[in-house]
Amino acid sequence: MRIARYSVGGEVSFGIVEGTGDSIEIAEIAGHPFGAIEFTGVRHPLSRVRLLAPVLPSKVVAIGKNYAEHASEMGGEVPEAPLLFLKPSTAVVGDGDPVAYPSSSTRVDYEGELAVVIGRLCREVPASRANDVILGYTCANDVTARDQQASDGQWSRAKGYDSFCPLGPWIATGIDVADVAVSTRLNGEVKQKGRTSQLVHKIPDLIAYITTCMTLLPGDVILTGTPAGVGPMQVGDEVTVEIERIGQLRNPVVAR
Amino acid sequence: MRIARYSVGGEVSFGIVEGTGDSIEIAEIAGHPFGAIEFTGVRHPLSRVRLLAPVLPSKVVAIGKNYAEHASEMGGEVPEAPLLFLKPSTAVVGDGDPVAYPSSSTRVDYEGELAVVIGRLCREVPASRANDVILGYTCANDVTARDQQASDGQWSRAKGYDSFCPLGPWIATGIDVADVAVSTRLNGEVKQKGRTSQLVHKIPDLIAYITTCMTLLPGDVILTGTPAGVGPMQVGDEVTVEIERIGQLRNPVVAR
Repeated sequence: MRIARYSVGGEVSFGIVEGTGDSIEIAEIAGHPFGAIEFTGVRHPLSRVRLLAPVLPSKVVAIGKNYAEHASEMGGEVPEAPLLFLKPSTAVVGDGDPVAYPSSSTRVDYEGELAVVIGRLCREVPASRANDVILGYTCANDVTARDQQASDGQWSRAKGYDSFCPLGPWIATGIDVADVAVSTRLNGEVKQKGRTSQLVHKIPDLIAYITTCMTLLPGDVILTGTPAGVGPMQVGDEVTVEIERIGQLRNPVVAR
Repeated sequence: MRIARYSVGGEVSFGIVEGTGDSIEIAEIAGHPFGAIEFTGVRHPLSRVRLLAPVLPSKVVAIGKNYAEHASEMGGEVPEAPLLFLKPSTAVVGDGDPVAYPSSSTRVDYEGELAVVIGRLCREVPASRANDVILGYTCANDVTARDQQASDGQWSRAKGYDSFCPLGPWIATGIDVADVAVSTRLNGEVKQKGRTSQLVHKIPDLIAYITTCMTLLPGDVILTGTPAGVGPMQVGDEVTVEIERIGQLRNPVVAR
């Protein structure tokens, strides 16, 4: 199932994306997708709605250096335990929304990655039960002002700018993401190419680790880390994060 | 004015704290305090309500090393620009709520500090207009697992545990906080003692700096940094952050 959040005629709704190719439609659901799903009967062609970020997380918990080759290209090693950082909810935008390049930075990078969307309030979740708290998966771009990441030491500012957390296009549920391809293209050219089977700390272990620290709420998002190949974007570029079994997240880069 | 959030009989409300000493009462307001305040006419003696965190922030933006003596005791210098980090909203608790000592840490510290509560959605706020976006001020304890802060490098986990962001007892509005005393007591003994006039980066500059990066929303909280004297708490301790013109924030420490 593919769960989208969208606006049409000024109204924001969640809906289920059905069909393929030119005949894709969204079937509106009542309320939110956390719990039993009830259709309203309203349907729209996908081309007639504006997709929004598929979820409004209370927090985005991200994992640093979780692919060995990326840790290496950053001049470091994979941390023994998952390395947590936070992105603010105000950084979240959806598919097609612009990433705003701040004038304070001269080096803003894409980081394509698999995002996990949490389905229920949870804490102290054993890895063996982690699947129970997952609603689904989406594509993410952990946009990073690389110069400020280095100069600040703490990553909150460098990764916290408005629009620095594109999520989308929708939440795919009921899929196996143990070994799916994650790629990032810049103006069509493939820059990052990895598989989630290369994740050093696996999703169930991430959920167990995070929830020994902080409670996760429905809609919270975990960014699982980026493969090797990160690099700069420029104003005017378009960046596409594609994940097998989920879809494509495309965002143009504009001046802020 | 002092704005509290409280529960009584299972209902959660905002209210205005009136009076002093034994005759303090809370006058309930309709809805929330972001905008025009309308009284419902319902009043409660303060002793009959349970105070909650005075606000539920979408994010808590905190500033590291913003008092020179504290920067020095941490073995560093004051950063030239404000050093931002984030605490998750799930870390927020209120006056009287326990701080839960995680079993994964052997060194959990208090850090008393002045918190700014934002009153309206804002971005790119010039320092000269920062006062316009402030609702008021409260006391905060930026509880920190000092061992994990050092071992992780990024501070999100060490400062992000559930209950690691006590806020309260209420939001004081219309006060001048340019030079107020900030102190922290552990079981009654004074451990930290500073004045906000010692803040290296002042509140208007912090708001200007933060909002060049991220949009702030009504209820968002800025922790302005802690004075020298940080140190460990143990299970069974009580920690009190007191700020002149605001009040006292008391929290017991319990095992998680």
